[in-house]
Amino acid sequence: MDVISVIRAKRDRQTLTPEQIDWVIDAYTRGAVADEQMSALAMAILLNGMDRAEISRWTAAMINSGERMDFSSLPRPTADKHSTGGVGDKITLPLAPLVAACGAAVPQLSGRGLGHTGGTLDKLESIPGWRALLSNAEMMDVLRDVGAVICAAGDGLAPADKKLYALRDVTGTVEAIPLIASSIMSKKIAEGTGSLVLDVKVGSGAFMKNVDDARELARTMVGLGTDHGVKTVALLTDMSTPLGLTAGNALEVRESVEVLAGGGPADVVELTLALAREMLDAAGLPDADPAAALADGRAMDAWRRMIAAQGGDPDAKLPVAREQHVVTAESTGRLTRLDAYGVGVAAWRLGAGRARKEDPVQAGAGVELHAKPGDEVTAGQPLMTLHTDTPEAFDYALAALTDAVEIGGDHTPPPLLIDRIA
Amino acid sequence: MDVISVIRAKRDRQTLTPEQIDWVIDAYTRGAVADEQMSALAMAILLNGMDRAEISRWTAAMINSGERMDFSSLPRPTADKHSTGGVGDKITLPLAPLVAACGAAVPQLSGRGLGHTGGTLDKLESIPGWRALLSNAEMMDVLRDVGAVICAAGDGLAPADKKLYALRDVTGTVEAIPLIASSIMSKKIAEGTGSLVLDVKVGSGAFMKNVDDARELARTMVGLGTDHGVKTVALLTDMSTPLGLTAGNALEVRESVEVLAGGGPADVVELTLALAREMLDAAGLPDADPAAALADGRAMDAWRRMIAAQGGDPDAKLPVAREQHVVTAESTGRLTRLDAYGVGVAAWRLGAGRARKEDPVQAGAGVELHAKPGDEVTAGQPLMTLHTDTPEAFDYALAALTDAVEIGGDHTPPPLLIDRIA
Repeated sequence: MDVISVIRAKRDRQTLTPEQIDWVIDAYTRGAVADEQMSALAMAILLNGMDRAEISRWTAAMINSGERMDFSSLPRPTADKHSTGGVGDKITLPLAPLVAACGAAVPQLSGRGLGHTGGTLDKLESIPGWRALLSNAEMMDVLRDVGAVICAAGDGLAPADKKLYALRDVTGTVEAIPLIASSIMSKKIAEGTGSLVLDVKVGSGAFMKNVDDARELARTMVGLGTDHGVKTVALLTDMSTPLGLTAGNALEVRESVEVLAGGGPADVVELTLALAREMLDAAGLPDADPAAALADGRAMDAWRRMIAAQGGDPDAKLPVAREQHVVTAESTGRLTRLDAYGVGVAAWRLGAGRARKEDPVQAGAGVELHAKPGDEVTAGQPLMTLHTDTPEAFDYALAALTDAVEIGGDHTPPPLLIDRIA
Repeated sequence: MDVISVIRAKRDRQTLTPEQIDWVIDAYTRGAVADEQMSALAMAILLNGMDRAEISRWTAAMINSGERMDFSSLPRPTADKHSTGGVGDKITLPLAPLVAACGAAVPQLSGRGLGHTGGTLDKLESIPGWRALLSNAEMMDVLRDVGAVICAAGDGLAPADKKLYALRDVTGTVEAIPLIASSIMSKKIAEGTGSLVLDVKVGSGAFMKNVDDARELARTMVGLGTDHGVKTVALLTDMSTPLGLTAGNALEVRESVEVLAGGGPADVVELTLALAREMLDAAGLPDADPAAALADGRAMDAWRRMIAAQGGDPDAKLPVAREQHVVTAESTGRLTRLDAYGVGVAAWRLGAGRARKEDPVQAGAGVELHAKPGDEVTAGQPLMTLHTDTPEAFDYALAALTDAVEIGGDHTPPPLLIDRIA
C-alpha cells in the first residue's frame, strides 16, 4: 500500500477500498503519511466526494485510531447531543441537567469556541471554580452521581481526527461534508454514547448556510450513527438569528439559569424541550416529561449538583464586563432581520471568542439583545447592549453589525424547527 | 493576502488573480506557505483547472522566483528543444550538434532519468570523462566555441518549480496539464532561449497516453512560450514503440554516433531532421540544410568538439554490460507491436534507470532491439538483447516484456510525426 496510489484513486474519482482507508488513516496517525500528502487527499475528497460506505469506513478508522469509552456499567441509558455550532447556542447548559433529571445519563464532551461561534466550555468557565478537565474516573463519578457531565474530550479519543482537523483548518479543506460528518461522528461514537441527537444549524450564523447542505450533512451523520450501532436522530434548526437574547459566555450562563428556573426566552425553551424529547425517546424513556422537570425544579437541582461536582459555585455572582454600549433602533416598525453572523462576529470582537486556539476569552463580554425578529420596535429604543472589558473594541464590533439589522423589511423569520432526519 | 483564501478560490472554481498567483508562488518559495497548503492548492488546480491567463501568470511567477540567463551577447540565434520524455529518446544527442553545425546556438539544459524514461545527462555520462555540471561561464564558453552545450540546469533557475515539482511527485499531483506546462516552460523561458521546439510524446511510453491530452499540453506550452516572447513550436510524435533500436545509456550514445556518421535507424534520423528543421526555422535560419550537415560530417565534427569541451573523449570505447540475454520470436509473421512502456520498464529494471533520484545507473545496461513494428520476423530469430551488469535482474526485466510483443496481430503502427502545433 502506498499513499500516492490512494491519493490518485480519489483524484481519479474511484471509490477507496476499506483497506486503503484503514491504511491511510493509520499511517497518517503514525506519521508515515505526511501532512502534504493528507492535505492533497483531503482536497480530492472535498472535490470528488465519498460514498456512504467510504465515509463509514473512514469514520471507523478514525475511531480505531484511539481509545473508546464505555458507559455500559451505568444503571441509566446514555444520551448525548451535538450541535454543529451557532450564535447564542447555550442549549447544552440547560439541556444536559434536564435530560439527566428525566432519567438518562448525559456524557457531554464539549469543545471551545473558535471564530464567531461560542464554545460550551468557555461559557461554563465563567462560573467561578468550575473546571472542564476531568479524568475518565472523575467523569464516571459525576455521571453516576448527577446523571450529567459536561467536560473536555480527552486526547485519547479519535487522535486521527484531532490531527486531521488541525490540518484541514490550514489547508482550505474544512467544508467537505464527508470530512465534517466523519469528524463529528468519530468523536461521538468513540465517546461511547448509546444514543445521539444532532442539532444541525442552518443559516448565516451556522456552518451550513442553506437547508440542502444541512440536510445532506444530517443524513450523512445519521447514517454513520446507525452504521455504528448508535441510535441517532437529527433536527435541522434555524441559525439565521441568534438563539435567545444573549451571545457571550457569562451572559449565556445567566440566560440558561433563567430557563432552568422556568423562565427564559421562548426559542431557547422550545429548542431545549424539543431536543430533550428526542434524547429521551432515543434513550428509551418515552414516558419522561421534560416540561414537568423544568417546571418543578428537578432540572435546576441537577444543574446545581452538576456545577458543584466540577468545582463550580452555582450561587456565585457571574462576571460582568466593565463597559457597556447601547445600540438603538434607527426607525419604527417591525424588526425583520437580526443577523446571527453579524451578532456572532460582534460578540467575538468584543472579547467573547478567540481568533486562535491559544487566546483567552473575556467571561463578561458579548451582546445582549432587547428585541428579536418579529417584534415591533420604536425609533430610539435600545436594540442591543454590547459588553466588553476592552472599550476600544466597540467600533470594530459595531462595524460587524452595520448590515445585521433590518426594520420594516419584507423578510419573514423562518421557523425554529426546520426538519427532522431519523 | 492569505493562503487559505487562495486555496478556497481555486477549490470553489474561481479564477486566481495575478496578485494571488504572484503572492502564493513567492510565499511558497520563501517557506511562508507550507507544503501541506501548496499540495492542497495543487490538487485543486489539478481537479478544477486554470485558464490560459492563470497558467501564464503562474509560469511568470515561477520564472521570477530565480535568475534568468541571457544569451544576447552570442553572435548566433539561440534554439532549444525539449522532449516530454520517452523510451529510446536519444534525439538530443545528434540534434544539438547538428543544429549548431547549421548556424544556431543550442543551450540544452537537460535532466536525469526517473522511472522508465531515460535522461540525457545519464546517457552522456557513459562517455569516459564527460561532465554534466558546468558553471554559467563555462557554459557560455562552450556555446561560443562549439555552438551547442548539453549540461545540467543550475539551482538558480526557477527554484519555485524545483520545490513544487518535488512536492507534486509525492502528493499525486503530477498529472495536471497546467502544472506540467508551467513547470517545463518556466525552466525553458528562464534559460533564456530565443526559440523553442517541443517534442510532445504520445503513447504507452510517454507521459501523455492519448493524442487529445498531448495536443492540449502542446497548445498550452506553445501559448506560454508566445506569451513570454519565445518563438515556440510543438511536434506531437509517436511513443507507442521505442525510438530507434536501443534503450539504455551507452547503447543510445552508440546509436547517436551512428546517426551522426550518416547511418542509424530511420526513425531516429527522421525525427532528428524534423526537429532540426523546426529549430532552424524558429531561429530564423530557413536556408540551413541539416540533411547536408549530417551527410558531410559537419554535425559529427560539432559532436566531437562538444564532447571534448566538456572533458569527454569522443574516441573512447563505450562501457558494455557484463551479461547479455537474447529474447527470440515465438512465431513467424509481422511484428505488429513492441510496446514502449514494456521496453522502458525492462531497461530500467536492467539498471539503465533509477527508482529514486539518488540511485546510480549502469552505463552499459538496457535493451537492444533487432526488429521494429512492421518488420517480418521468423520463429526463433532474435527479437531483442537484454544487457545488464546484474544478471539476477533478467527475470524481473523479462516480466515487463510479457505483454509487450505481438506478432501477426492486426495493429497498424501509427506515424512517427502525428501533428504540429504552432
